[in-house]
Formats: sequence, structure tokens, C-alpha cells
Amino acid sequence: MKIAIAGFGALGAATEKAALKSKNTDLFGIFTRRPPDSIRKITNSPVYAFDEIEKYKDEIDVVINCMGSAFDLPKTTPCLAGIFNQVDSFDTHKKIREHYKNTAEQAKKGGKLSLICAGWDPGLFSIARAYMQAVLPYGKTYTFWGEGVSRGHSNAIKQIHGVVDAVQYTSPIGSAIFRVRNGEFPELKTNEMHKRICYVVAEAGANTQRIESDIKNMPDYFADYETEVHFLDYESFLSEHKTMKHGGSVIRCQNDNGELSTIDFSLKLASNPYFTAMTLISFASAVKKMNEAGECGCITPLDIRPSDLLDGEAIFDII
Amino acid sequence: MKIAIAGFGALGAATEKAALKSKNTDLFGIFTRRPPDSIRKITNSPVYAFDEIEKYKDEIDVVINCMGSAFDLPKTTPCLAGIFNQVDSFDTHKKIREHYKNTAEQAKKGGKLSLICAGWDPGLFSIARAYMQAVLPYGKTYTFWGEGVSRGHSNAIKQIHGVVDAVQYTSPIGSAIFRVRNGEFPELKTNEMHKRICYVVAEAGANTQRIESDIKNMPDYFADYETEVHFLDYESFLSEHKTMKHGGSVIRCQNDNGELSTIDFSLKLASNPYFTAMTLISFASAVKKMNEAGECGCITPLDIRPSDLLDGEAIFDII
Repeated sequence: MKIAIAGFGALGAATEKAALKSKNTDLFGIFTRRPPDSIRKITNSPVYAFDEIEKYKDEIDVVINCMGSAFDLPKTTPCLAGIFNQVDSFDTHKKIREHYKNTAEQAKKGGKLSLICAGWDPGLFSIARAYMQAVLPYGKTYTFWGEGVSRGHSNAIKQIHGVVDAVQYTSPIGSAIFRVRNGEFPELKTNEMHKRICYVVAEAGANTQRIESDIKNMPDYFADYETEVHFLDYESFLSEHKTMKHGGSVIRCQNDNGELSTIDFSLKLASNPYFTAMTLISFASAVKKMNEAGECGCITPLDIRPSDLLDGEAIFDII
Repeated sequence: MKIAIAGFGALGAATEKAALKSKNTDLFGIFTRRPPDSIRKITNSPVYAFDEIEKYKDEIDVVINCMGSAFDLPKTTPCLAGIFNQVDSFDTHKKIREHYKNTAEQAKKGGKLSLICAGWDPGLFSIARAYMQAVLPYGKTYTFWGEGVSRGHSNAIKQIHGVVDAVQYTSPIGSAIFRVRNGEFPELKTNEMHKRICYVVAEAGANTQRIESDIKNMPDYFADYETEVHFLDYESFLSEHKTMKHGGSVIRCQNDNGELSTIDFSLKLASNPYFTAMTLISFASAVKKMNEAGECGCITPLDIRPSDLLDGEAIFDII
């Protein structure tokens, strides 16, 4: 499979690393909107201007769209969808339907297949929720994120005027997890399950009160959550907040005549972007296979058969 | 969806209960090889002789084949495959390829779709293993079963001459789970991960030494495991061993440059047959959908899209 990387932030760089390690993947090139010379890559893959990507449409099987989810993907995913098979990790839950529709329209015109939301949530956690609901149909599902850095939320903070760098930790509230596992079936709002903890480096002289308010009021990302914002100097930031760890749990409980059934799907990830990169590459191989079999339009990870993620006969080793 | 139940042991009875609760499922009837009058059912569904099932081929969307996995399904699944859409929970891992081949041949001839291995292992655990391998491609997967009753293994013991009733508990070995979660990547044989504990009621005067030996030497089911066999009277058996609880975990670990990533999928089930029944009914709805879309032959749970288990627009609520 010949892939290209579009966008070269943390996720793009992790995808380069994952592509280098994957036996079945050739990296055709990296496409960026920054000056190609500024890209610090680890392979000898060529770097091209993003604007020229269409020229290479016959040489790339799948574009891994690694641009920012909050502001870039809503434009670039539909824009690439008619030209390339594509995978992205769009992660604004409330806007998925709109992103799906915009992408599907373009992909169908071009006879190509775009997979959106292929990270861990939405993505692997969505898959877990779907199976859990199917097999415990009378239960209740809870999703806990963290503790760990959310790339999407960190990037969203970085877009704010006056912010030099930022990191956002999502942290589940322990007493909430306990009540869920204990079979209490609590009604929990998102801000009763998690808090969002932000560490922000501001530009010298920036109005930190305004930045804090911009963060706390950002719709979809922070407005509905208990959010802490801490400002710190860049040196402390670099030494204390460069972890890429993340994790989370999807838990579904069902009360069967007084007895509890539970399914628990938990991740602990050493590196959130590297994990997302491995997921994008694995799902890209399914996208290639499915487009070759005639499928086009927009799909989510829920539309991929697990067997499409495996090599042919491997299913008999795994089942 | 109009289903029929073929075979009315513990799984058949649980499927009747699950069908009664499912809003989208009508139970057309129960097909049995026992005298229809002897069936103790909870619905007013008619009971038919299994031999006559073909007569009703135009009135049933999917047959849920609930017969015994060890001895019945290898014959009855291929036999029904050409006539009906079908779901079974065949669970002899080493014979899946053969069962698949026999079933596929018949199903293709009839233009029908048969799903095999749709329980929890093989089944939901197979799905977990497939996704985990896809997203942590350089890791190692471990599967632990228990503690709980294995229906397949219990049934296998019940087939032995001189056995009145029996139950088999599969139990994970705690130190093995600890080493796995701890990131030690141990090489573990199945009998270093689990033991099999059997409680058996023998006929009066039966040769218990021969029964014990028959159990311990049964290929696929017991021969490769540390197996304990305990004989007890029927009264104690009924009062102490009627739990249907089960559970298990699939764990995959990957060492990312010295840091550990893990994915953990765990089940705790109040009732193993009721859970399998809910799974069979949910997967049956996907089988119906897929056959209507033109798919025929034999598939496993790995060949079903998660979205085929959900109602149309529900994916946007779940993703």
C-alpha cells in the first residue's frame, strides 16, 4: 500500500514513524502547507507543497489526512475526498454528521472512499460501544477518557490568539468509575465523569484572563466541562508536560434479573499520536481493499469488517 | 425478523427468552429432535419436529441453530445452510476451518448466508483479538477464560457414557494474568494460563475411573489442560453448581520503546447461555440484512460490520 501523509504536526510525524515500521506500507511522500524545508522528518520521503497533491493522484493508494481536527479537517477532508482514498481522525463528536455528509458528497463524485473518525474516540471506542450495545441490548454504556493528553483539545487551545503552547489532560473522576462498575447505573453528565486540566504557555504580555475565558467557553471542546486552566513558563512546560500517554474505558452494564453483566474495554497508550497513527494505517489498508472492491463514499470505522483489517487467511488464526 | 430455534437445550431455552424480550424479533417456532410435548417453553410458540423444518423455509428469516457444538453442529449447520439463513455458536477452535468449509459449500448452493462461531469465544473475543492486532501490530495477545462454566465443555462431558450431569469451570491462573498486565510478555501455554475443573454426577455403579480418564483424554476439549474431575451426588450438584456465570479477558500488550501500551477487553456475564442468545439474535439481524443485500456463503463474526448490528441512523448516536 502506497500512502501519503497530509499535514505534519504530532500526528503526521507519528504516522511517518508508523509507516516506516509497517512492512506493507510505502510512504510516497509528505504534503504540508508549511515550507517543505522546515519539516523535520525521519525518513528520506520527499516533502511536497500540499497545494500540489492532486498532481500525484495516480501514485497514492490512500492519503492519511493528519491535519488538525478542529479547524483543518472540516475543509481538507471533503476537499481531498473526490480525488483520493483517504483516512482521517476527525474527533468533534457533535459535528460528525455534517463532516460525514460533506465528505460523502465529494467522495461519491470521484468514486473514492474516505474513512472519517478513525482514531480511538471516535474510532476504536465507537466500535466497542456498537458491539456492547448489540450484545447487551438492555444495558447502559459509559465512556471515560484519560488520564491523558487529548491532542484535539490541546490543538484547539493552541489556535487561541496569544497561546504559545498548551496541553490538555482529560481525567476521569474516580468515584464515577466506581459507581458504574458497581452496577449502580448512575445518570452522569459528562462533567460529573471527567475534568479537563489545561497547561498553557502564553505570549509575553498576553491577556491571560481573556485566554482562560476563550478556553472555558469554547463550544464542543470545553464549554460543557469542568475546566482548569494553569499558566506556566515555557521551560517548565517542556520539562513537565511532554508525555503523550493516554487511556480510557468504555463500560457497559446490564442488570439481568438482579445479576450484573458487564463488558469493559480499556486502553492504556504509551503515545496517543503513535497509537492513532497505527490505527490510521491499519484502517487505510481496509479502505484500499474496500475501494478496490467497488465501495465509494464516506464511511466510519463502524462500516469496516474486522476481517478487512487482517490478511486473508489470518482470520483462522485469530478466531 | 422472524427466527426459528433449532435445538432446545440451555442455549435454545435462553434464545427463546431473549427472543421474547427483543422488540424486533418474532419467534416462528422451536424445532427439536425430542418429543415436541416434552419441551418446557415460556412462550406460546409452536414446537415442531426438527425433521420437518424444511417445510417452513419460506416463513423463517434466520434459524438460530442452538444444538450442541461438539457433536451436533458439525452435521446440522451444513445441513441447514443451503435452506436457511442461519447463525450458530460452534466453539471447537481447532475445527473451525473444516466447519467453515462444509457450511460454505451448502450455503452457496442455496444462496443463503450462514454465520458460524457467534458466541463469545469464538465470537466477541475473536473480534477483540482482530481489532487489537490491527491497532497494536507489534504486540502480543493473551486470552483468559473464566472463572465460569463452559457450556461446550460441560456438554462434552455429558456425552460420555455413564454421566448423568456435569459442569465444567474454566479458571484463569491469577499469577499468569498478573505477569501479562505487568508487561512481562511471558510465553504461556494454555495449561499455564487456565485450569479446567469438572463436577460430575455419575450413574449408579458407573466406572468413575473410566469416566475421569475419558474426560481428561478428550481431544480439543481437555487433553491439553490441567483438568480436575470431582464426582458428587446429584442433590449437591443441583444445589451448588447451577450458576451460569462466566467471564474472561483478552489482553494485548505492546512495548513502545520501553513504554507499555495495553488494550484490555473483559466480560463478566450473569448467564453464559443468555448472553450467547442475545449475541446470536443480534448477529442474526445482520445476517438477514446481508443476505438481502446479496451475500451468501459462510461467514464468521469477523465478516460483519459493526454498523450492520445497529439500526440505520443509530451510528451517529454511538460514534
